[in-house]
Amino acid sequence: MLTMQDALLALTRYWTERGAMVVQPFNTEVGAGTLNPATVLRVLGPEPWRVAYVEPSVRPDDARYGENPNRLQTHTQFQVVLKPDPGNPQELYLGSLEALGIDIHAHDVRFVEDNWASPALGAWGLGWEVWLDGLEITQFTYFQQAGGQTLDPVSVEITYGVERIMMALQGVDHFKDIAYAPGISYGEAFGQAEYEMSRFYLDDADVETQRRLFADYAAEARRLLDARLPVPAHVHVLKCSHTFNILDARGAVSTTERAKAFARMRGLAREVAGLWSERRAELGHPLGTAELPAAVAAPTVFSTVDGARTLLFEIGTEELPPHEVTRTAAAVRRALADKLAATRLGHGEITTHATPRRVVAVVAAVEPTEPDAERTVRGPRASAAFDAEGNPTKAAAGFARGQGVDPGELRRFDVDGVEYVGITRTDVGRGAVEVLSGILAETVAELRADKNMRWNDPKLSFSRPVRWLLALLGDTEVPVAVSTVAAGRTTRVHRTAPEPVLTVDTAEGYLDFLAAHGVVADQSERRARIVAAAGELAASVGGRVDAEAESALIDEITNLVEEPNAILGGFAERYLDLPAEILTTVMRKHQRYLPVRDADGALLPHFVAVANGSCDHDTVRAGNEAVLRARYEDASFFWRADLQTTLADMKAGIAKLAFEERLGSVAERADRIGAVALALAADADLSEEDTATLRRAAELAKFDLGSQMVIELTSLAGTMAREYARRAGEPEPVAQALFDMELPRAGGDKPPATIPGALLALADRFDLLAGLFAVGAKPTGSSDPFGLRRAAAGVVSILRAHPTLRAITVPKGLSSAAERVRAQGIDVPDTVLADVAEFVTRRYEQHLLDAGHPHDQVSAVLPLAAAPALADETLAELAQRVGDPDFAALVAALQRVRRIVPKDTASGYDPAVLTEPAESALHQAFVKAQEAAGATLSEFVPAASVLTVPVNTFFDEILVMAEDPAIRAARLGLLAAIRDWAAPVVDWQSLDV
Amino acid sequence: MLTMQDALLALTRYWTERGAMVVQPFNTEVGAGTLNPATVLRVLGPEPWRVAYVEPSVRPDDARYGENPNRLQTHTQFQVVLKPDPGNPQELYLGSLEALGIDIHAHDVRFVEDNWASPALGAWGLGWEVWLDGLEITQFTYFQQAGGQTLDPVSVEITYGVERIMMALQGVDHFKDIAYAPGISYGEAFGQAEYEMSRFYLDDADVETQRRLFADYAAEARRLLDARLPVPAHVHVLKCSHTFNILDARGAVSTTERAKAFARMRGLAREVAGLWSERRAELGHPLGTAELPAAVAAPTVFSTVDGARTLLFEIGTEELPPHEVTRTAAAVRRALADKLAATRLGHGEITTHATPRRVVAVVAAVEPTEPDAERTVRGPRASAAFDAEGNPTKAAAGFARGQGVDPGELRRFDVDGVEYVGITRTDVGRGAVEVLSGILAETVAELRADKNMRWNDPKLSFSRPVRWLLALLGDTEVPVAVSTVAAGRTTRVHRTAPEPVLTVDTAEGYLDFLAAHGVVADQSERRARIVAAAGELAASVGGRVDAEAESALIDEITNLVEEPNAILGGFAERYLDLPAEILTTVMRKHQRYLPVRDADGALLPHFVAVANGSCDHDTVRAGNEAVLRARYEDASFFWRADLQTTLADMKAGIAKLAFEERLGSVAERADRIGAVALALAADADLSEEDTATLRRAAELAKFDLGSQMVIELTSLAGTMAREYARRAGEPEPVAQALFDMELPRAGGDKPPATIPGALLALADRFDLLAGLFAVGAKPTGSSDPFGLRRAAAGVVSILRAHPTLRAITVPKGLSSAAERVRAQGIDVPDTVLADVAEFVTRRYEQHLLDAGHPHDQVSAVLPLAAAPALADETLAELAQRVGDPDFAALVAALQRVRRIVPKDTASGYDPAVLTEPAESALHQAFVKAQEAAGATLSEFVPAASVLTVPVNTFFDEILVMAEDPAIRAARLGLLAAIRDWAAPVVDWQSLDV
Repeated sequence: MLTMQDALLALTRYWTERGAMVVQPFNTEVGAGTLNPATVLRVLGPEPWRVAYVEPSVRPDDARYGENPNRLQTHTQFQVVLKPDPGNPQELYLGSLEALGIDIHAHDVRFVEDNWASPALGAWGLGWEVWLDGLEITQFTYFQQAGGQTLDPVSVEITYGVERIMMALQGVDHFKDIAYAPGISYGEAFGQAEYEMSRFYLDDADVETQRRLFADYAAEARRLLDARLPVPAHVHVLKCSHTFNILDARGAVSTTERAKAFARMRGLAREVAGLWSERRAELGHPLGTAELPAAVAAPTVFSTVDGARTLLFEIGTEELPPHEVTRTAAAVRRALADKLAATRLGHGEITTHATPRRVVAVVAAVEPTEPDAERTVRGPRASAAFDAEGNPTKAAAGFARGQGVDPGELRRFDVDGVEYVGITRTDVGRGAVEVLSGILAETVAELRADKNMRWNDPKLSFSRPVRWLLALLGDTEVPVAVSTVAAGRTTRVHRTAPEPVLTVDTAEGYLDFLAAHGVVADQSERRARIVAAAGELAASVGGRVDAEAESALIDEITNLVEEPNAILGGFAERYLDLPAEILTTVMRKHQRYLPVRDADGALLPHFVAVANGSCDHDTVRAGNEAVLRARYEDASFFWRADLQTTLADMKAGIAKLAFEERLGSVAERADRIGAVALALAADADLSEEDTATLRRAAELAKFDLGSQMVIELTSLAGTMAREYARRAGEPEPVAQALFDMELPRAGGDKPPATIPGALLALADRFDLLAGLFAVGAKPTGSSDPFGLRRAAAGVVSILRAHPTLRAITVPKGLSSAAERVRAQGIDVPDTVLADVAEFVTRRYEQHLLDAGHPHDQVSAVLPLAAAPALADETLAELAQRVGDPDFAALVAALQRVRRIVPKDTASGYDPAVLTEPAESALHQAFVKAQEAAGATLSEFVPAASVLTVPVNTFFDEILVMAEDPAIRAARLGLLAAIRDWAAPVVDWQSLDV
Repeated sequence: MLTMQDALLALTRYWTERGAMVVQPFNTEVGAGTLNPATVLRVLGPEPWRVAYVEPSVRPDDARYGENPNRLQTHTQFQVVLKPDPGNPQELYLGSLEALGIDIHAHDVRFVEDNWASPALGAWGLGWEVWLDGLEITQFTYFQQAGGQTLDPVSVEITYGVERIMMALQGVDHFKDIAYAPGISYGEAFGQAEYEMSRFYLDDADVETQRRLFADYAAEARRLLDARLPVPAHVHVLKCSHTFNILDARGAVSTTERAKAFARMRGLAREVAGLWSERRAELGHPLGTAELPAAVAAPTVFSTVDGARTLLFEIGTEELPPHEVTRTAAAVRRALADKLAATRLGHGEITTHATPRRVVAVVAAVEPTEPDAERTVRGPRASAAFDAEGNPTKAAAGFARGQGVDPGELRRFDVDGVEYVGITRTDVGRGAVEVLSGILAETVAELRADKNMRWNDPKLSFSRPVRWLLALLGDTEVPVAVSTVAAGRTTRVHRTAPEPVLTVDTAEGYLDFLAAHGVVADQSERRARIVAAAGELAASVGGRVDAEAESALIDEITNLVEEPNAILGGFAERYLDLPAEILTTVMRKHQRYLPVRDADGALLPHFVAVANGSCDHDTVRAGNEAVLRARYEDASFFWRADLQTTLADMKAGIAKLAFEERLGSVAERADRIGAVALALAADADLSEEDTATLRRAAELAKFDLGSQMVIELTSLAGTMAREYARRAGEPEPVAQALFDMELPRAGGDKPPATIPGALLALADRFDLLAGLFAVGAKPTGSSDPFGLRRAAAGVVSILRAHPTLRAITVPKGLSSAAERVRAQGIDVPDTVLADVAEFVTRRYEQHLLDAGHPHDQVSAVLPLAAAPALADETLAELAQRVGDPDFAALVAALQRVRRIVPKDTASGYDPAVLTEPAESALHQAFVKAQEAAGATLSEFVPAASVLTVPVNTFFDEILVMAEDPAIRAARLGLLAAIRDWAAPVVDWQSLDV
């Protein structure tokens, strides 16, 4: 049995043997190994650094008196920093697992996307959580920024969660039962400290004292920065941070304090980082400068091939996030198509496939060479090329010299009727290998993802590191050089394969080659295999997997493996007593397991996990079951604890949760939402019952964010509100409203079913949008941390789903929300609200286009987007009328009016001036139309149709621009009046009839 | 090359393989590994504990900006705690050195007495510093108390000084040059932190902030104790302690603050310890109860031997302190002699020998058995034994029954004229082996030293652990069982010997046997070898070792080795520029090296070190030279730094040094000394010049305690004062007075030569005695931390050496000192001063007895001890008169007077009542004697002699107890007057003439 201390020693030894220096845990409390200066300061600047250390990480908030099997106020991290990225950090990491005695052939070890960001440290990175049979055992991050500084070189940070690893390896389900050392358990060694420090953090630390300590530490850090001493300054920032965590665990941090404290710590941490970098530079970077691999020389010699052959191009990466797998395959296909189109190289079909670790592009029938092509080089005009005697002028002679030809070789060309002199050149077609070499290099260099990172390559940037390239045209290597990466004829299969690196002979049949080595490159095939296997496994226990309902999850799983290996697991029936949403949320969100249900859709105590590649089924099943058991045990604990807490207490708890620095706590937000919902209700003509429901639900709004269950499983917000409200005896409509207010959770999700729920859901989203735009947190291209796009889309969905709420327009809702935000002293300019409204409109537009509505019709109704239900109706009406020639004529007439009248012409005219019959007829038709028409398209069109003929007659017979200014004004005024009268109905100009 | 991180891993591995648990360094700053709860709390109570860990130990006071080669604000300790003592901790420790790649056969590894006490922690222990070629690399302690609690079981604490070990192993002379990890030096890894944290501790920490932090931590610790949470309370005590250390390094702790802070921390630490023990008991001692070895069964079967044989008895110990080696040899010899004398076993000479690791007793010609002996058992008086009929009474019958004999067997005995009945029994002599078995066991059980400790034996207590016993009578084993230790026929020689454990065949010739295995048991032989070898080595470089001057050091060295191995080393000539006292102090006190001098007594750049047993000379020489070089480098640094500091600045520095909690700082003490010296001078009839000298010297008194040199080498106090005063241009007499005031340093040392120096020296000692007795710090049997015995002896020496100062009596001096102590608000009752005076008298008495003066004469002059110079003269006079019959007659007469007169009889009488001739003659002789006599013996005796005859006649002829009360009163009054008149001269009653 490997004890925990053996494990720490084994890791230490493993990493020192790989050149890491060992340092000691830091001697003031840190929340994570990252905060040890050996990480957070050393990743800055150009100096190389390779370090490994144990870090007991103190998280007062996780204190549980030693009672919770998985949570400790101090847990043990083993931290490794590799700077620069050695190029094979995943392989090194897997070696460390073997050093721990983990058989990586038997277990399912996976790298699952998990990015890391600490705004407080001005730090972020991309990477993974490493799963061992579904258990997160390590955080693996390519550090991109720290202390607000972009890191160059990038560091690899590997953080092992040692207690978790030990529990898994030793098969125990409470941290206290870990064999820490021979004959002594973790509980025996540290149980008393765990209890007593929990008492201190949760109950006994003196709040006033800790507040003073915080202030003193912060002030000392400030002074030390001024004295240009980053090391002791950092120590004091750490002390600040720990003290803040104690205050927080004691529940003693108000919203204002929290915001201030974070701002202060963030500012200090950034200054520390900056000063450290300066000081290292002043010291001349004592450890030298890290060296990155050198760029590969661009190829200059290219083979030739005979006849058309298949191009195989594989881009090998570290594990891509699932959504990037699909996205990258498409992007590579597009890039190849575009780039090939820009050459003269003939080729057949382009297909791409992708797994987490590779994009495989196959281009059929690539011709061996480009054909030759002629090209004209234009010189001076013929008229300026020869003098009176027909001899070349200086200009012509100069041109000929420049082109390296005799002036006598110049020929004449006609270009758009003008004669030029020039020459014709033949571009000799390049060989396919040469053409492809350039294209493939560009394709790799131009790879981009939603979030991009850097690694040990000085130029490349992508979602995850690109580690190898394979490029074959038939059996000929295509030399490709991209920065430090060169293509070859080898590929990599599973890291645990007997031969992880394989030579590929020929491009043809590559997918089969891969399949023979356990890699299913085709996504649809992987997906099909998963669905089939999951179905079979479920059937074996009398259940089924609802592949349609789980479609998104199956897509994700498909992109988490290179070779699906479905495994049936089970859990204790007693957990079925928990609400099903809890069980499925844990399965799906945390573990990517497929739930198994009976014929009635009720959960069975089974799940299907999908491992990657070959492994020992029993080992992997047991591991995954243990993980699920621990999670369900946690959930049961939260469930029981929450059921013993009143709704009021949970609601009180959300005052502790920060929402946003200036917008305050979640409690403040919930209050605003309640107030806005009630205000919106004034426009909604609610029944008495709905009003009462709304009142109560508004009082309780978001209370479940204060429950332990939702703190742990945030996606259960709303679900748990309904559950707990019911059990607390709240009326069912209140419970339902609380559930509804979180809907829709994502695109495609159902909107709220009830009116009180819809009002709360709207208020929620209006508050989010108005508030965050006001504080400048509107989303950027790649970043939308508060989910504002989703919120805007939600507003649209809700309003579309509830036409009875049409009186609640987007601007009204935003304005109501802005009022409450302003009450917190935050400036919300009207221009910002206009921006938000526009932002919402864009989401609506996208909805409509995605649903396949014609572009012109969508544009036509967008002016109505403030009330999407109305816009929807209008759009429907439009769609119906589109084939109608009368309607088309009306539209054409109205468009003609609009075209003729200058934009700034005001409507209004003196009918007395309009004496011509066509004038007068139009005026009278307009009067009649105005009388008959309504505001909606359906009420407008029949009435407005009377204008079609008079408008056309008017334009045929009347000269609008009369010389008499009064007449001219009246004619323009009439047309402008028609324009303005029609304008609110739809955007006539957009219609393409 | 073993890097430092390799070394830490090697130690970790070594100790885990021996059952130690590994914990992490503590995550708040600690000053030493001892303070980690894994030591200071875990050593409490009955639970077993075996732990090893690295501890970066923070000592703000040692901050040197990374400039000093040997001092760091954070140094690395490797800490091991073995609880209970495994019985072979030294051997385990030596194994760990081998694990570090240290060839313990080539190096000289020694265990040199170094006890440890932390009053602040209520903790102490006995043990050693471990020397590697003269370099202290480890502290090795048997923990006896912690937190004020006596430890049971005792823990072994091993603290490696890792940087020192690495510097020695790697042969570098600056910590920054240590190879910390492959390709990275200690300086590269930690240099910036060392500099910046030094800046923080020495210059930049904000004093007011740190004061607040101290108060907050202390208050939090207090609250946590009240909440019964020892673990977080301990954390806060540590934070207190570190903050105090920062304040101290910043020079911001006043005397009052220091005393208060220490008291507060001490109190908290003790409470933490107490509470921890309680809590562990409440938790049911989760780790169980440590088991100690079981007691060995007492022998019941004893062999017999034929004829007289030699007894060999060896007590094997761990390294005894040098002074205990000699002391224990003598004690064992005495014990054996006494115990054998109490038996009937015949034997020859008893000799004992001792080394640091063994006491060898040899008793020649032990008879094989005791002779038989007869013994009378007394019953009732004969008169009560038989009734009138001559039949045994009940009493006699009962006695006989009790003795198991028939009443008829009773015989009659005469005891002091009374007749008893009884029986005679024959005690059959026991065999020698049986007799010795008991005696030897008792001898071991009764071993006691100045300071005693416990280890893993539940009953034994001695200076260091007793680890083996060897007992042979000729070639027969003598079974001895003492608690857990049983004697056998094996002994242990050098731990590095090819066979460290050897079987001994026979007692005869054992010293030769040992010598053949490299152990010289005979102290005088070891000493002679050292003197001879040192002389030869010194001669080889043209120098000599002054064996007489170095006598005490040679004695110590003799008891530091079992086999002396003298090695000549050298040092750079440039260090000879330092004052010789510095060089020799370092050599002698710190390193136990013998200085080498030229014919004129000037130091040569050489020394003789004495290693133990065989080793590689070059290795050991190089090691010792490196140690000395580092120490001399330090000293040079201090020397240069001090020379750049004014005397006034050094003097100001001593305000920072605490003397004693209530008596304040060293500066306050120096002020008191100056004032007392000037007050005493009033009685001393000083020349004008001496007065001026005294004034200036009093101002400067103790200034050198503020010099870096004396802070480092305290024994140079006075020496450096003279040196620095001279160089600062002070008059030579002032410099000399400052030197003198520290004399005598120890018994046998020279007293001050000058009068100003003597006055300061007296004032120093009077202050020490009056002050410390007043605050209750008077010495106990084994503990005299302030050296009060030495101070009292110093007073005596100084006063004896300066008869011209006789007007300064001990009570006067104490009273003057008490006045200044009282001025600090401390109560000094007169009874305390009387106690001190008595304490001084006892020292004087001891001096005289040690000098061989007869007991009776010493007792006679003790009443004069207040002025020892006077007492000395009186004693000399007494010694001269002792053979004189007239003097003897006078003494007899005076003693007769004293005997007759009741103690409470007052002197004084009415001469008119004394009418008898003998009465009247005595009266008149007394009148005459009083007129002629002086106060000293020499002035008294001639005048008093006239009383001899009248006194004797008076007693012959006069009945003192006359019936007439008036006459009786007059006669008694006359005698009492004579008694009282003679009493102050000497104590006549004591004289044995």
